[in-house]
Amino acid sequence: MNLDAYRIRSEPFYQPVGDEIAVFEAAFAERLPVMLKGPTGCGKTRFVEHMAWRLAKPLVTVAAHEDMTASDLAGRYLLEPDGTVWHDGPLTMAVRYGAICYLDEIVEARQDTTVVIHPLTDARRILPLEKHNEIVPAHADFQLTISYNPGYQSAVKDLKESTKQRFLAIDFSYPPPAVEAAIVAREAGTDIELAGTLVAIAERSRNLQGHGLDEGASTRMLIHAGRLMRAGLPLEAAVRSSIVLPITDNHDIREALSAAIEACIP
Amino acid sequence: MNLDAYRIRSEPFYQPVGDEIAVFEAAFAERLPVMLKGPTGCGKTRFVEHMAWRLAKPLVTVAAHEDMTASDLAGRYLLEPDGTVWHDGPLTMAVRYGAICYLDEIVEARQDTTVVIHPLTDARRILPLEKHNEIVPAHADFQLTISYNPGYQSAVKDLKESTKQRFLAIDFSYPPPAVEAAIVAREAGTDIELAGTLVAIAERSRNLQGHGLDEGASTRMLIHAGRLMRAGLPLEAAVRSSIVLPITDNHDIREALSAAIEACIP
Amino acid sequence: MNLDAYRIRSEPFYQPVGDEIAVFEAAFAERLPVMLKGPTGCGKTRFVEHMAWRLAKPLVTVAAHEDMTASDLAGRYLLEPDGTVWHDGPLTMAVRYGAICYLDEIVEARQDTTVVIHPLTDARRILPLEKHNEIVPAHADFQLTISYNPGYQSAVKDLKESTKQRFLAIDFSYPPPAVEAAIVAREAGTDIELAGTLVAIAERSRNLQGHGLDEGASTRMLIHAGRLMRAGLPLEAAVRSSIVLPITDNHDIREALSAAIEACIP
Amino acid sequence: MNLDAYRIRSEPFYQPVGDEIAVFEAAFAERLPVMLKGPTGCGKTRFVEHMAWRLAKPLVTVAAHEDMTASDLAGRYLLEPDGTVWHDGPLTMAVRYGAICYLDEIVEARQDTTVVIHPLTDARRILPLEKHNEIVPAHADFQLTISYNPGYQSAVKDLKESTKQRFLAIDFSYPPPAVEAAIVAREAGTDIELAGTLVAIAERSRNLQGHGLDEGASTRMLIHAGRLMRAGLPLEAAVRSSIVLPITDNHDIREALSAAIEACIP
Amino acid sequence: MNLDAYRIRSEPFYQPVGDEIAVFEAAFAERLPVMLKGPTGCGKTRFVEHMAWRLAKPLVTVAAHEDMTASDLAGRYLLEPDGTVWHDGPLTMAVRYGAICYLDEIVEARQDTTVVIHPLTDARRILPLEKHNEIVPAHADFQLTISYNPGYQSAVKDLKESTKQRFLAIDFSYPPPAVEAAIVAREAGTDIELAGTLVAIAERSRNLQGHGLDEGASTRMLIHAGRLMRAGLPLEAAVRSSIVLPITDNHDIREALSAAIEACIP
Amino acid sequence: MNLDAYRIRSEPFYQPVGDEIAVFEAAFAERLPVMLKGPTGCGKTRFVEHMAWRLAKPLVTVAAHEDMTASDLAGRYLLEPDGTVWHDGPLTMAVRYGAICYLDEIVEARQDTTVVIHPLTDARRILPLEKHNEIVPAHADFQLTISYNPGYQSAVKDLKESTKQRFLAIDFSYPPPAVEAAIVAREAGTDIELAGTLVAIAERSRNLQGHGLDEGASTRMLIHAGRLMRAGLPLEAAVRSSIVLPITDNHDIREALSAAIEACIP
Repeated sequence: MNLDAYRIRSEPFYQPVGDEIAVFEAAFAERLPVMLKGPTGCGKTRFVEHMAWRLAKPLVTVAAHEDMTASDLAGRYLLEPDGTVWHDGPLTMAVRYGAICYLDEIVEARQDTTVVIHPLTDARRILPLEKHNEIVPAHADFQLTISYNPGYQSAVKDLKESTKQRFLAIDFSYPPPAVEAAIVAREAGTDIELAGTLVAIAERSRNLQGHGLDEGASTRMLIHAGRLMRAGLPLEAAVRSSIVLPITDNHDIREALSAAIEACIP
Repeated sequence: MNLDAYRIRSEPFYQPVGDEIAVFEAAFAERLPVMLKGPTGCGKTRFVEHMAWRLAKPLVTVAAHEDMTASDLAGRYLLEPDGTVWHDGPLTMAVRYGAICYLDEIVEARQDTTVVIHPLTDARRILPLEKHNEIVPAHADFQLTISYNPGYQSAVKDLKESTKQRFLAIDFSYPPPAVEAAIVAREAGTDIELAGTLVAIAERSRNLQGHGLDEGASTRMLIHAGRLMRAGLPLEAAVRSSIVLPITDNHDIREALSAAIEACIP
Repeated sequence: MNLDAYRIRSEPFYQPVGDEIAVFEAAFAERLPVMLKGPTGCGKTRFVEHMAWRLAKPLVTVAAHEDMTASDLAGRYLLEPDGTVWHDGPLTMAVRYGAICYLDEIVEARQDTTVVIHPLTDARRILPLEKHNEIVPAHADFQLTISYNPGYQSAVKDLKESTKQRFLAIDFSYPPPAVEAAIVAREAGTDIELAGTLVAIAERSRNLQGHGLDEGASTRMLIHAGRLMRAGLPLEAAVRSSIVLPITDNHDIREALSAAIEACIP
Repeated sequence: MNLDAYRIRSEPFYQPVGDEIAVFEAAFAERLPVMLKGPTGCGKTRFVEHMAWRLAKPLVTVAAHEDMTASDLAGRYLLEPDGTVWHDGPLTMAVRYGAICYLDEIVEARQDTTVVIHPLTDARRILPLEKHNEIVPAHADFQLTISYNPGYQSAVKDLKESTKQRFLAIDFSYPPPAVEAAIVAREAGTDIELAGTLVAIAERSRNLQGHGLDEGASTRMLIHAGRLMRAGLPLEAAVRSSIVLPITDNHDIREALSAAIEACIP
Repeated sequence: MNLDAYRIRSEPFYQPVGDEIAVFEAAFAERLPVMLKGPTGCGKTRFVEHMAWRLAKPLVTVAAHEDMTASDLAGRYLLEPDGTVWHDGPLTMAVRYGAICYLDEIVEARQDTTVVIHPLTDARRILPLEKHNEIVPAHADFQLTISYNPGYQSAVKDLKESTKQRFLAIDFSYPPPAVEAAIVAREAGTDIELAGTLVAIAERSRNLQGHGLDEGASTRMLIHAGRLMRAGLPLEAAVRSSIVLPITDNHDIREALSAAIEACIP
Repeated sequence: MNLDAYRIRSEPFYQPVGDEIAVFEAAFAERLPVMLKGPTGCGKTRFVEHMAWRLAKPLVTVAAHEDMTASDLAGRYLLEPDGTVWHDGPLTMAVRYGAICYLDEIVEARQDTTVVIHPLTDARRILPLEKHNEIVPAHADFQLTISYNPGYQSAVKDLKESTKQRFLAIDFSYPPPAVEAAIVAREAGTDIELAGTLVAIAERSRNLQGHGLDEGASTRMLIHAGRLMRAGLPLEAAVRSSIVLPITDNHDIREALSAAIEACIP
């Protein structure tokens, strides 16, 4: 089996902000596990796709959720005509055949999943499949990357210290305005001036964070607004539908947000 | 496989209130995911049926509930004479063959379902079926729409920020009186005067919202009352059975409501 | 398949109190869903049996409970010699072949059940069997009736507003004394005088409701007492065994109840 | 299938205290369901065995527990060489072939079990096996008896009012001293004088109920003590092992109990 | 099937402290169920092994845990080439073929297990296998023994009164010093003087119980220390590894314990 | 079956700090179970690998997690072409064929796992496989080792006293600075001076423990930093990515930590 279906054919656009590419390359050179930290919609998934393309390795992405168990990652027996047959899960596939495995928001998963990755993140670099009575040594190309949103963690649901200490970390945040405008213009196909207006709107919303908003507008939302305008909606309707209405249901915050937005419109 | 069984043959009646049709058309043109926000019985389901008809796309509707898991959406293995066989769930069907997929009250479902839809709602537009070791790229016609009732959400059960930010939003509310009366008259087959009386009754009940009533009478309830009258019940009995008794069990609120209703009867 | 086993052959005795028969007939004419509201043992089940007989439709009754899931209503796959085969649940049977489906105390069931009935209770009148990849359109004779005991509901277990608003409601309570005595005499085979004594006893117990008793004696309990006397027990022993001992374990309430009863005995 | 294995061949010894035999006989004549109320070890199980013998009906006994589900009572599908085959549960067996079914401490079971018995306890006398698509009408000899220990019930675990009201009730308590001594002498094979001493000890312990003891010594414990003495142990050792040590782990209560016991020894 | 694999071939060493052997022999003569009460590591398991050897009966031991269900005790269906086949659990094996069944810390198990043993602990002496539609009468040699650690019980996890009252009880505690030293010397193969030193150390630790220690050193720990010394470790290292470090993680308690120990070393 | 795949071929580097090797050798000579106590990343796993190599025994390692059940350790039935077949779990394999079984963070597992190991940790040295109706006597080479992090335990999740008392204990902590620097230099391939700088940084972070940090930097983190530098990153970037960012998300602590680190850089 090869993992060709998991290779990324064309370069995913990624605009670096600091030394994150150098850090990831050094981590990959040493095959050390990496944790990407940062808020929603600021480009963590895009970054790992870009790095997989840059390093020319297959990328196996798994979005974790609170019902995800170790078996969803490692594999399980399925009933087939000739009896039960073992099927590798996505993590095992990446370990066995050599891929970057990206576990998105691993903290959402049940804790048995974090234990499964422990022996892959120290000198052993093995994946014990207890139910299959097999110990899979990691392929030379295997590397593990996880994402983590510090704003979401709570006392009841957090990575254990013994897990966190196994990972290098790279911090992500919203890019500086000029960089963000360039990203929006490119991704939404708008001119740079309009993109700048959208970024200004986003910054207003981010200032409201902690004052009634859980999180400000993400880069993704700005791209949504740009695309709606490309499809013919006027700016106000596009921003209302892509930013104001999704971000809050509170009438007063919506008013404040709309006023702030109006002030940004040239 | 085609999705002909999911096509809507005749135009579902829908009375627009604002620019919601234009917004949805722009969203569909860009294949951006949409969230319909609003209270019970104000026409969200009817709107999405109307849009599917207008855009001439099949519509796959899934009513979420708190025991619904990702497998209910994505699919599962079933035991057949020749062993286990994979069966696509309704979401996978819509993704694979091209349909608007409407997830009604998705917030009710278990959180693993929201993670399943993430890779369908960004640039990737893929549905990874981990249990099937398959990555389904979305058909060009696939579009995702969900509904959300802000009045119902609580701290323990809400969409994650990282989910909300992926959707455009359209707000729904009860239509203005004249529009609502036209809808009631058309749907219940009553004359417009009687429909106006029923709408006046509904407005009285909506004023009691927050003063003993969780929610006022919906447009649907008014249609029920009209239909009971068409079947021969007098106005008082029809309104009592379709509005007063269902909406509350509190004796005092029932009295207040009945008095308010009586004042509306010409 | 026909539903002959679910037809009611002989008229179930039902003594109307108000316009409940007219309301149910109008609701059935329009195929609108109905909710029967009222306390334990006051005749809701008997009423729906009577209406099914009167309308000459089969009646499929399902007693809900807190472990009941949507699959118990809709159906499931069972393993047979030739692999898994789909078996319709009782609700699907009623939808497919045309019956009144009576879901007794539906609020007890898990919430996925209430979502299953939503598309059956609006203009769509369909039952989507997601696990079976089938959409069952309701038979012309299908009608849905549910029961609901307002005294039992709590914050943690109640029907959602979006469910309640889909149903017409009919209120039930204990019948007036003369009517109740006629019912007891007929059902227990006692003379009308004794039945009147039993009804007087019931009214005493109903006055204690809220003063140490959760609920007063139901019509059913009076019929039990009458039947024990028909089998040879004296009045005191019959009333003690059918009313006093079942209704409370509190010594003082039992004393109060016994004293009140003694006062009723001629 | 007959239920011969469930017939009771020889008369179980039972010493009546009041009119309980007459009440049960009247209830059985009318096939009304019966609830036996009372504390641990006072003879409820023995009474129902005696009545089954006296009425010459088979007796199917089921001890409920908190993991018991409706399927444990009603039946389930089992996988056999030719596919899944339905197996009647003990309740279904009693309903189908005619037996007294005794559900011991039914309140311990999950609530779906109580709903299963509802249609068996009113005029319908049917057992709907939803998973089997079958409605079993009760055999003419079927009768339902349940037990209930009022001292154990709590707010979170109690029979619903709508269940309680379906049952006649018979109260049980410890027998008067002379009767209890006769029972102990007979069951343990001791002389009546020693049995009287043991009953005196039990009464001392019952006086401590509520003052450090949850429950006093039961008749069963006295029989245990008598049997240990028959096997050669001295009175003190027998009483210590059968009453003092099992009933409490509190050192002071044990002292008080031992002192009270010593005072009873002639 | 015989239970030869469960017979104990050579005498397990047991040093009696009181009349516990006589009480157990009387209980076995009458086949009354027995509960062994006492703290960890004081010889309850050894006692029941000794009694099984002395009475020449097979011994089936089951260590209960909080996920243990009635099926783990009673048996279950397993899928075999010819369909499902019933497999007796360890309790059923003991009941059917005649053994002492020892349920260690039964209170840990789920409550359905305690209900399973009820009909085995009264005059019926039967084991109803509801899932197997079988009633197994107990073999003449069957006897039930359970253990119970009063120090561990809490309000949420305790035996029900109706279970406790079915058992005779025998109390266990740590043996007197001279007896304990003899046991340690024999089991660890040390001289009696060293064993006395270890017992003195244990007593110091037991005095700290309730003052920072949940439980003092058990006889088992002393034997561990003796065995480490036999393997070549010096006394301080042996006691540190077998007693101080396992018993507490609190630095101050460890200091106090170490000082107390030093004072015991001759 | 032999356990050759579980043998450790080349000596795992381990730098002893105290008498831990002698204690483990004495424990193994007596086949007494051992508990390794200590914080994350201080070398417990490496120690047991070293001991397995030194004693020339196979090593079966199981990382426990909160969904791990007794069946994951002991084994289970799997469906194969000829029906269900028993598969030994990793613990059973070690017991049956003779290996050191290392249960890492056993306290994370469900409590049924701790009961499974009880009969392996006393004189019986047996593993009862209740579901397989088999009692496996331990191979002469079997020895059980578990790890335990005292800093993690809480009231709701801790080993039972009756489990703790069955194990010898060995304490682990971070090694003295010179030893730790030697380990870092060797494992990361850096010179000893740089390693000393990294150890100095770690000590600063460990001083912050309890003042905003749950745990200080582990030896593992220092090795990560050294390896990143070997791959070309400058010291600040390497330390930031391997220590500062993973260890905390708090801005102030990060500042304090960064300042402390800067002070260490020569």
